[in-house]
Amino acid sequence: MISTETIHPVAGVRWSALAAGIKNAAAGEPPPDLALMEIAAGASVAAVFTRNAFAAAPVSVARQHLQTWQDEAAQTPVYCLVNAGNANAGTGRAGIVVAEQCCDKLLQALPTTAAALPFSTGVIGEPLPLDKIETALPALVAGLDPARWQDAASAIMTTDTIAKHASIRVSLSAGNVVISGIAKGAGMIKPNMATMLAYVATDAKIAANDLQKLLNSAVNKSFNRITVDGDTSTNDACVLAASGASGVSIAPGSADWQSFQQALESLFVALATAIIRDAEGASKFIVIDVQGGRSQRECLQVAYAVAESPLVKTAFFASDANWGRILAAVGRAGVENLDINAVVLTLDDYCICRHGARPEDYDEQKASDIMARPEINIGIQLGRGDASERVWTSDLSHDYVRINAEYRT
Amino acid sequence: MISTETIHPVAGVRWSALAAGIKNAAAGEPPPDLALMEIAAGASVAAVFTRNAFAAAPVSVARQHLQTWQDEAAQTPVYCLVNAGNANAGTGRAGIVVAEQCCDKLLQALPTTAAALPFSTGVIGEPLPLDKIETALPALVAGLDPARWQDAASAIMTTDTIAKHASIRVSLSAGNVVISGIAKGAGMIKPNMATMLAYVATDAKIAANDLQKLLNSAVNKSFNRITVDGDTSTNDACVLAASGASGVSIAPGSADWQSFQQALESLFVALATAIIRDAEGASKFIVIDVQGGRSQRECLQVAYAVAESPLVKTAFFASDANWGRILAAVGRAGVENLDINAVVLTLDDYCICRHGARPEDYDEQKASDIMARPEINIGIQLGRGDASERVWTSDLSHDYVRINAEYRT
Repeated sequence: MISTETIHPVAGVRWSALAAGIKNAAAGEPPPDLALMEIAAGASVAAVFTRNAFAAAPVSVARQHLQTWQDEAAQTPVYCLVNAGNANAGTGRAGIVVAEQCCDKLLQALPTTAAALPFSTGVIGEPLPLDKIETALPALVAGLDPARWQDAASAIMTTDTIAKHASIRVSLSAGNVVISGIAKGAGMIKPNMATMLAYVATDAKIAANDLQKLLNSAVNKSFNRITVDGDTSTNDACVLAASGASGVSIAPGSADWQSFQQALESLFVALATAIIRDAEGASKFIVIDVQGGRSQRECLQVAYAVAESPLVKTAFFASDANWGRILAAVGRAGVENLDINAVVLTLDDYCICRHGARPEDYDEQKASDIMARPEINIGIQLGRGDASERVWTSDLSHDYVRINAEYRT
Repeated sequence: MISTETIHPVAGVRWSALAAGIKNAAAGEPPPDLALMEIAAGASVAAVFTRNAFAAAPVSVARQHLQTWQDEAAQTPVYCLVNAGNANAGTGRAGIVVAEQCCDKLLQALPTTAAALPFSTGVIGEPLPLDKIETALPALVAGLDPARWQDAASAIMTTDTIAKHASIRVSLSAGNVVISGIAKGAGMIKPNMATMLAYVATDAKIAANDLQKLLNSAVNKSFNRITVDGDTSTNDACVLAASGASGVSIAPGSADWQSFQQALESLFVALATAIIRDAEGASKFIVIDVQGGRSQRECLQVAYAVAESPLVKTAFFASDANWGRILAAVGRAGVENLDINAVVLTLDDYCICRHGARPEDYDEQKASDIMARPEINIGIQLGRGDASERVWTSDLSHDYVRINAEYRT
């Protein structure tokens, strides 16, 4: 069972977090905005990064540092330095330099040789304040503790309204392991990847190549299936570490592998859907199930056309069972030779459209009652094959516009 | 010169309009919601329709009736019957039947043999009230008049706040001709085509095939280059008629052809940009010029990624020079091997991003002043080829959400 309340510590992983003054100081206590993840020596570490052509400076640097560490099969610890409040994106050559400097300063503040990976999230185009980060580093390192996952989850928030974390214990034939993770993200959410950062760790022992495969697969079924506004960030990153501290080894092909993979995926889905539940201005949590497609690709095309239609999203915000807008979005998704007569639309299993029109016994009140629910499933049967896909999204509200219009002011 | 005030009558074309009670009656006078265009016998008529797979019933019927009329080279008049307030979309087989019935009733009300093309715009999924249309037909036919273009422009409005029309006189070597047109549309606007209806006529004499070419080309440079929310309607249609009443013939290859084509395109652009200026909740008129691409396709990809990014649109609504969001949208547009260092962004020719960052001498105040303008040009230089494309769009405001959340209530 996934726990989103308690986070089980993961042996071999410690976190620290504090307020470094990077986020805009509103009245009162400065919010935490700097976190440090320590992955002990001997672990495997995998990561995926944004596919935006204009990857932010920290993404370039983190990707390169991790690659070097992996290539050297270095038996040193890995540190993830994560700041919120400033994305160090759209900062050109200077942004690369300051990301490298952050890593250098961190390595100087550590008692041991290590690899340093920088991550940033927040406003684009402003210079990252190196001095504030440098000043905060000694206290940040001193604060490392296995029990500080929650603190870290809070420190990496930007427009998030709640800290996002999930944890699970997995019983395997060779013994028990835990998986714990934190994530942030609330807008600019779109596959490949969402504007999000996520850090997940397990005490299982998993070879580096296998870990990357597990990560790719889990991301593809979770963070790459959520969308808020179709925008993809320049800063997305997701790190998965396996410390091996439990002594329980997991290798492909075993029954344990399957159990572990399942648990890992459910944890990723828990984090990804937590992002959608907290999406900017979201008042509805919407699951879109497209079934009966000829290929997964066309199912995804349809799912995203619906998920990202401003007209569909505003109808959900208004709790208006405007199924015509869903139908119109399906119709423009670009699926070739789509037969409107084969398409069936449901809201929480209640049929709202069949043969291109409302069913004879359609009950507007019933549809409106469903639309008023905080969580709604849109079912789209294409009736032309066996492929299916699921995507999660949110509605488009006044608050979305307010939050994104006021973001820098 | 395009006139958007006076509409020159077009010999061979008459319009009528009235209130048939199809639109929801608010307090006061019922608004006009039914229009009839008469194209005299002997004209050429061309049309383009939505590419949404789920074309609405009137689109299917109009396409088929026009095709039959063209195939028979019928020397009869053509009548376009246009209602607003109900789209007759998502109405299944019954929708086709009622669209055909409307045409039959219209033909019965006419003194002559003719072709009837139905067009509908408004709410999706509600049955079209045939009785109201039938009742209105005699008065509608009796009201036909060459000078009623403006009345028709008003009658076809839905969420439009102003009637849209444009007119131009063209001096050719063989004599003078006029082109006049009306359009509607304010949301669900996206190329191929926007949710829009447009009716344009000229008194020039143009062969049917040539007229269709002229129409395709003009639509591609106007209505297919505007976007508000990326949604494509099931009901889009654009009709172009050439009555020939001026006696001035226009054939491909001549200097007159070129002059006429230019005038026609500028009239189409005037109608298309009028739609964007009146886009739902729009407070900004945004022109996106992408230059230096390797192909028109990749220029369009970039233009639409920026034009349809909710984050870019909300920043424009807030007059926030958040160029980072523009850069991020360009980066996710899917252009292969895009070099961030070659990309230059401008706002009304003021450089806001170069080499992946703000220019050294960037003046935030100057950028903010530009963002406060009601009309803004976003320049995007890709620096990798000679192709260019222009797209028009609007911002994303609180009013967009309000209008689309409240549309059916």
